[in-house]
Amino acid sequence: MNTHDVAAGRISVHEALVSLRDDWRGLSPEARLTRFRTLGHGEAESLFLSLGSHEQADLLSDLPADERRLWIRDLDPEDAVDVVQNVPDFLRAEMMELLDPITRSEVKGLLAYAEDDAGGLMSPRFSAVRADMTIEGALAYLRRRAAQQYETTYYVYVLDDQHPIGVVSIRNMLSLPSGAMIRDAMHSPIITVPDTMDQEEVSRVFADHDLLAIPVVDIEGRMKGIVTVDDIVHVVREEATEDAQKFGGMEALDLPYLDNNLQDMVRKRAGWLSVLFVSEMLTATAMGVFQDEIQRVVLLALFIPLIISSGGNSGSQASTLVIRAMALGEVRLIDWWRVAKRELVAGLMLGLILGVLGFIRIAAWQAMFSTYGEQWLRVALTVSCSLVGVVLFGSFAGSMLPFALKRAGLDPASASGPFVATLVDVTGIVIYFTFANFWLGALMH
Amino acid sequence: MNTHDVAAGRISVHEALVSLRDDWRGLSPEARLTRFRTLGHGEAESLFLSLGSHEQADLLSDLPADERRLWIRDLDPEDAVDVVQNVPDFLRAEMMELLDPITRSEVKGLLAYAEDDAGGLMSPRFSAVRADMTIEGALAYLRRRAAQQYETTYYVYVLDDQHPIGVVSIRNMLSLPSGAMIRDAMHSPIITVPDTMDQEEVSRVFADHDLLAIPVVDIEGRMKGIVTVDDIVHVVREEATEDAQKFGGMEALDLPYLDNNLQDMVRKRAGWLSVLFVSEMLTATAMGVFQDEIQRVVLLALFIPLIISSGGNSGSQASTLVIRAMALGEVRLIDWWRVAKRELVAGLMLGLILGVLGFIRIAAWQAMFSTYGEQWLRVALTVSCSLVGVVLFGSFAGSMLPFALKRAGLDPASASGPFVATLVDVTGIVIYFTFANFWLGALMH
Repeated sequence: MNTHDVAAGRISVHEALVSLRDDWRGLSPEARLTRFRTLGHGEAESLFLSLGSHEQADLLSDLPADERRLWIRDLDPEDAVDVVQNVPDFLRAEMMELLDPITRSEVKGLLAYAEDDAGGLMSPRFSAVRADMTIEGALAYLRRRAAQQYETTYYVYVLDDQHPIGVVSIRNMLSLPSGAMIRDAMHSPIITVPDTMDQEEVSRVFADHDLLAIPVVDIEGRMKGIVTVDDIVHVVREEATEDAQKFGGMEALDLPYLDNNLQDMVRKRAGWLSVLFVSEMLTATAMGVFQDEIQRVVLLALFIPLIISSGGNSGSQASTLVIRAMALGEVRLIDWWRVAKRELVAGLMLGLILGVLGFIRIAAWQAMFSTYGEQWLRVALTVSCSLVGVVLFGSFAGSMLPFALKRAGLDPASASGPFVATLVDVTGIVIYFTFANFWLGALMH
Repeated sequence: MNTHDVAAGRISVHEALVSLRDDWRGLSPEARLTRFRTLGHGEAESLFLSLGSHEQADLLSDLPADERRLWIRDLDPEDAVDVVQNVPDFLRAEMMELLDPITRSEVKGLLAYAEDDAGGLMSPRFSAVRADMTIEGALAYLRRRAAQQYETTYYVYVLDDQHPIGVVSIRNMLSLPSGAMIRDAMHSPIITVPDTMDQEEVSRVFADHDLLAIPVVDIEGRMKGIVTVDDIVHVVREEATEDAQKFGGMEALDLPYLDNNLQDMVRKRAGWLSVLFVSEMLTATAMGVFQDEIQRVVLLALFIPLIISSGGNSGSQASTLVIRAMALGEVRLIDWWRVAKRELVAGLMLGLILGVLGFIRIAAWQAMFSTYGEQWLRVALTVSCSLVGVVLFGSFAGSMLPFALKRAGLDPASASGPFVATLVDVTGIVIYFTFANFWLGALMH
């Protein structure tokens, strides 16, 4: 990035940051450190603040102590706490010492909360007034506080013995006569979240109410801080990534793809891959049961990948739909029967479409190349009927699995495409040979 | 929802809304209308404002004209424009007429933008001052404006001939002596986005800078409005859902799952499912090539589902990782070779793990049940070697496909699990029979 270019408006501030960061991320850890220390303060600051807390912690761990102090003090308490949690254990106490006393006690308070809870997301810095203040008095009070403290002021909360009873926006305060009372200007009752609420649920509260900040209260209803919507953008992105990785059939990674240690990544992928592999061994067992049938009508083997993959694909569609609808709060546990009915109908229709396509394919190849011999019609009927059955079962199982997982207290996103496919593969083989026995039984026994 | 319970603090405001909305969404369209009209104004308003623009448009279309006016006037211009775009064509002009004149002209301006662009997301209502004002003068000016207009005021933009040259927050203004100049208080240069920027890109700008609002400028750099971060929460959720649906192997749905017309949903799923099915027919062709081999060593058929599904699963993992990393801006096109190297190594390691597991399975069954006869070792070697090859190929192909799609100007999220699996299935069959020929060739010819 060239600051001269930015000043001249040739690159936007954002593009300049992105290109600086991309180049920096392309470097080795040692080169990253050197490069960071050669940047001007403004550039170094925007780069530092745009990094995730893992990257910030890595960078700070590598810096000399005096530079560390400068950078950790640049963070808001809710970001500083994430960095403190991400540095190696032996550095943690030292990092705490580098904070200024106010922030240090705020960070200490935040360390008590789980990182993924509302309490772990919140900022302890908010503006509060009393209901019996006048607008004028409240503005003067906020002005004195603003000069001393770092507080967000677009919402001002009205507290009664630490309990939030209302909220006024700065726009409200500016638009009313200065003698009016806060009590008359405030919006009440207000939306709050408990400090133990999971961050994904908090993001849903934000999505439903279009607020810029929401107060966090403890079990007794006392206000402990605010969660601001800019942090929610990160939460939603993070949760979507975790869900996608689970759906892709693996444990969620904590770090950006290229920053993961190769060994860790292989470990996180190998776990699920091995579980799926061992489950999929059931297909070999199922096929073994039908070994004699295959021996007699070897044609049957040709369509197995086609049949089972169609079941897996329709299952993958159905589980994706249900998982996302659950993540967005559109579908709840009690909706399972409504979903089941839809998927049974949709699965039947989709199965009929593929069944017809499969029939046409076999009939066409037979007409052109006589590929399937005189039994072609029976083979075609076996394939078509199996497709209907497998797609119907795939859609149904794929849509119900997230419900079953959620009911069992597990993450519905674990109903991954590969998981559903494995489940459907074994069933698909059984369905296929059942129809084969029906249409081709005479040949096989 | 019982307003008495809310007032008494027994249910939080948010929970009350969610339960009201869940019940309401469970009703038929006619019953929804009736129920909505029996709600108290406060409840009806929070329900209405929490709905998506499709649902708002449907509800407004069903209401009598005088009630319609009340509700559409409750929306900010950037939300009203979405409703106007979602009502049936014949109602559009009528809806515009219901707006107050100021909002109507704002909505007209917004209609020129694509719904998914920064221009389509922005609010035309922002606060602006000149650099040569004093803080005191600016506050007095904002106070007069606040009483008349609906403007967001947490950021106040400094304009020079319509071009944004800086920004001051209300906290800044309150914390400075009132005689100070805006010029000295403002933060500059500022981050802006062009009105044509795609909303997904806009969400990345927000994630990088932790801002509450970003000015939108036209091609000449004139400020047209602001995008606020609460709308970005919706964008991120929407984009994650679209990507997940594409990854699940279907077209993205526009509506919540249960609100989709069954026929539309089947159509959107049938398209991709049929394309995948037709591609997967290549597996039948590939198997046909090896029909004689299967006839001679029917044992070989048993392991085909296991082999090809392992390739598909590893491909699904790799493509999920790359798609999400691209969506978050962690991986760019030029990183393809770094990713390829990682995936070749990871794929080899994962393949070896599954290869060993496969070998153990066959050896164990042979030891216990003599399932595979005297050729068991050659069968085991065929399966193990194929697993290494298939998982290696799956990881590589799964990771490269999103790059190829992006390079071709398509959405990398279309590299769905089912798509990758189909690609890998055919290759998997070829790899498998190649190793079979090597280890069992003597038996098969």
